[in-house]
Amino acid sequence: MIDLYELAGADPDIRFSPHSWRIRMAIAHKGLRPRLLPWHFGEKRLPGGNTQVPVLVDDGEVIADSTDIAFHLEDKYDHGPSLFGGETGEAHARFIIAWTDAVLLPTIRPMIAADMLSLVKPDARPYFRETREKRLGTTLEKAASGRAQALPAFRAMLQPLRTVVESEAFLGGEEPSYADYTVFGAFQWSRCVSRFELLAEDDPVYAWRERMLDLFDGMAAGAKTVCD
Amino acid sequence: MIDLYELAGADPDIRFSPHSWRIRMAIAHKGLRPRLLPWHFGEKRLPGGNTQVPVLVDDGEVIADSTDIAFHLEDKYDHGPSLFGGETGEAHARFIIAWTDAVLLPTIRPMIAADMLSLVKPDARPYFRETREKRLGTTLEKAASGRAQALPAFRAMLQPLRTVVESEAFLGGEEPSYADYTVFGAFQWSRCVSRFELLAEDDPVYAWRERMLDLFDGMAAGAKTVCD
Repeated sequence: MIDLYELAGADPDIRFSPHSWRIRMAIAHKGLRPRLLPWHFGEKRLPGGNTQVPVLVDDGEVIADSTDIAFHLEDKYDHGPSLFGGETGEAHARFIIAWTDAVLLPTIRPMIAADMLSLVKPDARPYFRETREKRLGTTLEKAASGRAQALPAFRAMLQPLRTVVESEAFLGGEEPSYADYTVFGAFQWSRCVSRFELLAEDDPVYAWRERMLDLFDGMAAGAKTVCD
Repeated sequence: MIDLYELAGADPDIRFSPHSWRIRMAIAHKGLRPRLLPWHFGEKRLPGGNTQVPVLVDDGEVIADSTDIAFHLEDKYDHGPSLFGGETGEAHARFIIAWTDAVLLPTIRPMIAADMLSLVKPDARPYFRETREKRLGTTLEKAASGRAQALPAFRAMLQPLRTVVESEAFLGGEEPSYADYTVFGAFQWSRCVSRFELLAEDDPVYAWRERMLDLFDGMAAGAKTVCD
């Protein structure tokens, strides 16, 4: 029995944490079927005393932090398809994870944070606004107002990703890997909470995102978003 | 018999192409001993009609483009230590290569291009200045004059690399991989042509660079630079 605690909105069917999406995809990659449990900002009741999602409970064992969860899945479910393709693949994936956390997520965040506010449960909105505005260094609304002008720099920043998926189906090569799930989590986060389109349709990154949405019988494509 | 054609300066012992350094390191990783042949800007005589270094000639077979050369070495010399650790490791390495080419090299280039000018053979300096200034969109001297102010942004840009080498010895994990050689090539390029220090001594990236310089009995550390 695998339980995955995910960030949920006022509508508990909208699950929008970029880190949780990494794990949702990684679990599907291993052919496992977790129970998906909603968690809301400000709630304290996460297993193991954790205060952030995702949290995985695998036959009673509690693992937090998305990267640690991915390593756990790879080690424990070693008969399924690999998430990392061995030690060097895992080491190289750490760079792509670090790039996602240090470059990709902080660039997307100001563009969609205001849209997230309306998805958060009303009683958690003051907490959300205060913590996010502190992190952004400006109001949610001011951050969002600059997003159209921010798009060219955002798309230029994606060049390393673009270069790879122009010639390869996935960052993992012919098959997706945890590196794909990590980067995709950022795009799925945006897709779930905002109608703002980050990518141009003729961008190879757009085509890669479509391939990711189609994986596992369209699992991510079928997830409920703000547009539903 | 392996011949590697490398970019050389007016002093033919200073070899300063970031792409050639990737291959120099990769060849050493495989335990091979190439002949290192100098090539200068503007010269036409490269095997196979190529116009850019590095070019590898391996028992008569000519391979150009550093990434293609690395794949050739990995395929042909499959008994030595692996450069990529399998298909997924290779796919993930493509992202790190693309990051190096799209982000790291273009950020270093304006800081050191003026220093490179004095290393180039006098008769190739007009060609070097014209092509580099066109690429930089400014004069070599103007680009260099802003480098002290550019350092904080440069060092912040290294965060994905820093995150990994804070906890791992190498981007390849416990052992260096072609991803390490690719990123290191950029730092070795700068080190060979310029006295300008890109890194702070307390930066984990600095310590990683020291580990790279020490590999293969200090091969890169012992290479002739502008300081010798």
